[in-house]
Amino acid sequence: MATQGQVITCKAAVAWEPNKPLVIEDVQVAPPQAGEVRIKILFTALCHTDAYTWSGKDPEGLFPCILGHEAAGIVESVGEGVTEVHTGDHVIPCYQAECRECKFCKSGKTNLCGKVRAATGVGVMMSDRKSRFSINGKPIYHFMGTSTFSQYTVVHDVSVAKIDPKAPLEKVCLLGCGVPTGLGAVWNTAKVESGSIVAVFGLGTVGLAVAEGAKAAGASRIIGIDIDSKKFERAKNFGVTEFLNPKDHEKPIQQVIVDLTDGGVDYSFECIGNVSVMRSALECCHKGWGTSVIVGVAASGQEICTRPFQLVTGRVWKGTAFGGFKSRSQVPWLVEKYLKKEIKVDEYITHNLTLGEINEAFDLMHEGGCLRCVLAVHV
Amino acid sequence: MATQGQVITCKAAVAWEPNKPLVIEDVQVAPPQAGEVRIKILFTALCHTDAYTWSGKDPEGLFPCILGHEAAGIVESVGEGVTEVHTGDHVIPCYQAECRECKFCKSGKTNLCGKVRAATGVGVMMSDRKSRFSINGKPIYHFMGTSTFSQYTVVHDVSVAKIDPKAPLEKVCLLGCGVPTGLGAVWNTAKVESGSIVAVFGLGTVGLAVAEGAKAAGASRIIGIDIDSKKFERAKNFGVTEFLNPKDHEKPIQQVIVDLTDGGVDYSFECIGNVSVMRSALECCHKGWGTSVIVGVAASGQEICTRPFQLVTGRVWKGTAFGGFKSRSQVPWLVEKYLKKEIKVDEYITHNLTLGEINEAFDLMHEGGCLRCVLAVHV
Ligand SMILES: NC(=O)c1ccc[n+]([C@@H]2O[C@H](COP(=O)([O-])OP(=O)(O)OC[C@H]3O[C@@H](n4cnc5c(N)ncnc54)[C@H](O)[C@@H]3O)[C@@H](O)[C@H]2O)c1
Ligand SMILES: NC(=O)c1ccc[n+]([C@@H]2O[C@H](COP(=O)([O-])OP(=O)(O)OC[C@H]3O[C@@H](n4cnc5c(N)ncnc54)[C@H](O)[C@@H]3O)[C@@H](O)[C@H]2O)c1
Ligand SMILES: [Zn+2]
Ligand SMILES: [Zn+2]
Ligand SMILES: [Zn+2]
Ligand SMILES: [Zn+2]
Repeated sequence: MATQGQVITCKAAVAWEPNKPLVIEDVQVAPPQAGEVRIKILFTALCHTDAYTWSGKDPEGLFPCILGHEAAGIVESVGEGVTEVHTGDHVIPCYQAECRECKFCKSGKTNLCGKVRAATGVGVMMSDRKSRFSINGKPIYHFMGTSTFSQYTVVHDVSVAKIDPKAPLEKVCLLGCGVPTGLGAVWNTAKVESGSIVAVFGLGTVGLAVAEGAKAAGASRIIGIDIDSKKFERAKNFGVTEFLNPKDHEKPIQQVIVDLTDGGVDYSFECIGNVSVMRSALECCHKGWGTSVIVGVAASGQEICTRPFQLVTGRVWKGTAFGGFKSRSQVPWLVEKYLKKEIKVDEYITHNLTLGEINEAFDLMHEGGCLRCVLAVHV
Repeated sequence: MATQGQVITCKAAVAWEPNKPLVIEDVQVAPPQAGEVRIKILFTALCHTDAYTWSGKDPEGLFPCILGHEAAGIVESVGEGVTEVHTGDHVIPCYQAECRECKFCKSGKTNLCGKVRAATGVGVMMSDRKSRFSINGKPIYHFMGTSTFSQYTVVHDVSVAKIDPKAPLEKVCLLGCGVPTGLGAVWNTAKVESGSIVAVFGLGTVGLAVAEGAKAAGASRIIGIDIDSKKFERAKNFGVTEFLNPKDHEKPIQQVIVDLTDGGVDYSFECIGNVSVMRSALECCHKGWGTSVIVGVAASGQEICTRPFQLVTGRVWKGTAFGGFKSRSQVPWLVEKYLKKEIKVDEYITHNLTLGEINEAFDLMHEGGCLRCVLAVHV
């Protein structure tokens, strides 16, 4: 390819300042260095972490930057020493790396690889602590090690999942964040067993994926909780069997759930990012064994609280990042499951727009009807 | 025996009012009714839950009552339908019942039997919701379903562990609470694996039993944390390999531990009952897998807090009651382990007094040198 080894100038949506509309700019994308991969992004979705950092509420957010972390594309070129992917491979960039060498990867206990975090956490690449994005020489920060709101991006090789080229990229881009997070929270973090009673707080993409995962695991009841009752009808298709709107009840919602379930649920999942709901999710669990998993990301500085007696009497409080999935190993497996129609993906896509319409896409996230909006990046 | 079916008048230490010295009284102990067992208590130790309820800080404490829940004795007589124990059997009364029939017992996931809790929680027996203790017709409440500060007590049959008569009752009375709690927190609740790094906050009986359990489980490092450095020398005998006094450090103790352990411990245990230490215990755990177990009992109304990010990045927060041991099934097994010298018991007994000296025994609990004080009840 003519572009290999060259700086590519392409379109990207740049967040110049917190809370200001993104601007489509001509951005220079440097060639990948050793251990790096340059990807042509074809489709990207928006997720709440993008909106959170863009809003300026994330104290670690760095500007100007290129946001985006739920996407799919094709490898344009690779840097020195990269052996696992090649030009032309279909890939999903993964904000959660998997190096297979670090203490975390080798532990067998977590998916939280530590290899490139020191760099991705501060918006640069590992080798030279610099960005590969610039506009007329001015560097633009990376975001989450992915920066998919760009026609081309550069990522670490440990952050690239190579997938089956038969998979439609405009769909499987969703397997970069929200859907695996929900499924994995159930399968990997909670390990829900057949016959369990499950409560899901928040029926957005992540909560619906939790419901889908719980149904697949054989849960006997899946109670969906949302303050927007319009979410309920759609949630049935994802496995939710009962619905509760906290606004319809005078009692705290955890008490309503305990009463409905003869003592509480076996597993609960918070898929909103609200610390007071996190407490409800723990406290609606059954004494003796109920396990609550925090999936939602709360605003910086907020704290969760409960009486320690909740834990002393057998409840367990956990959390999950990317659903506990090992990205490079398991995202390709999720793509296969999708191709075999064992997991839903298409059903989470409620809107399709283009990269140029990204600000409308951000607006859509606040609309009750929107789950995921997929942007075509090259149009 | 002449006493069977009769009211027995015997000595008991009665807590008439919160925070007032206990009074040795002549108490009438009614015969056991259906499903009940009357036990001649030979030895009882004191535990912090006794002191907590006695202090008046427990909002569920009922007065007048007979405290005590860490004891051993001999069955004097049994009520109708009691088949698993008989007059003359050596037993340990268990505040945590095990009925083998309720939802909890059958779950296979918890030791928190629910069978008699509704009665034991309010100081009475299940069948008639009345007390078996009285003084000149005035009822005296039971405590934790055990009330071992009495020469005779009546308990539910589901709360009696029959033990090997070869076991010295003046020692194995400790297997009624503190020692199993610590061992079980490690073996049942945390399931510490060989090679793990463990932190134990609080080096009283419970914390030392945690250390002993962790050593038996093959922990590679056992870090003991206490604000009283005098505890350190003794703790070595129980397996503690390193010591930290938070008062010697300017940094928060969780940060000191994270620095000492290249990222944090694999398992931590709070054995104090202090909610701010519970937070430290969670936050000194390693990202990705560190598990913290709350063993200490905090004062009523107090809350634990942390940032949800602690859990989202893979830490797990749990608690334990009676170390997760199923009382009737497993206390006899612990007694066997003691007889085979596989667990310590004698080493936790620092003082021996008589029932008549019980107020001195309560005072001793505030002395740094005291672990367990065992009272001879019939002298
Ligand atoms: N842990 C991870 O790895 C990870 C990955 C992806 C997303 N997330 C987080 O998961 C959360 C959910 O993401 P999403 O895309 O599904 O979001 P979403 O906004 O689409 O869905 C949230 C849902 O919660 C409902 N809700 C809001 N407040 C509520 C309340 N008080 N009680 C009940 N329901 C309430 C909303 O009506 C909405 O339906 C976000 O916090 C996101 O940042 C975490
Ligand atoms: N969960 C259960 O089933 C169960 C059973 C028995 C006891 N307990 C509880 O376990 C706790 C410990 O019991 P114990 O008999 O070992 O008590 P203890 O008083 O003998 O030991 C507590 C130790 O903690 C130390 N300590 C106090 N404040 C501290 C601080 N801020 N930082 C570090 N160390 C501190 C003290 O110096 C002491 O050595 C109590 O809260 C008790 O109620 C729980
Ligand atoms: Zn996301
Ligand atoms: Zn790694
Ligand atoms: Zn106790
Ligand atoms: Zn039971």
